[in-house]
Amino acid sequence: MTTKAIFYHAGCPVCVSAENSVANALDPAKYTVESVHLGTDKSRVKEAEAAGVKSLPALVMNGAAFHINFGASIDAVK
Amino acid sequence: MTTKAIFYHAGCPVCVSAENSVANALDPAKYTVESVHLGTDKSRVKEAEAAGVKSLPALVMNGAAFHINFGASIDAVK
Repeated sequence: MTTKAIFYHAGCPVCVSAENSVANALDPAKYTVESVHLGTDKSRVKEAEAAGVKSLPALVMNGAAFHINFGASIDAVK
Repeated sequence: MTTKAIFYHAGCPVCVSAENSVANALDPAKYTVESVHLGTDKSRVKEAEAAGVKSLPALVMNGAAFHINFGASIDAVK
């Protein structure tokens, strides 16, 4: 049984680096990671904001938002 | 064979949260995570700075520094 983690990004170089290194390094025995490109899937911006995401890339897991470096503000993808 | 990842922190609540959620979630089949408290182990501040760490908590892996949220500037632990 795995827990869901969502990696929100904007397709930016900082985002790609964080996805390749951090998001893809999560233990697959514990987490299933969904990658959401908010630049192309704007319908999910509200959900990301509700989870506490203020900038991208960000990993939402265990009920909290973990912003990883800074690629773009969430306002930039609205 | 695992790769080493180093989680640098300052013992702050933001650091503890990032360690519990993100650092401890890395796949143990791929990464061995070392946790370094720079507030109590100041001898390693230079090594963290050389790896690109500017604030804490930060995860250094695959040759890059990933700052996770913001707990403290690295200058605060010098």
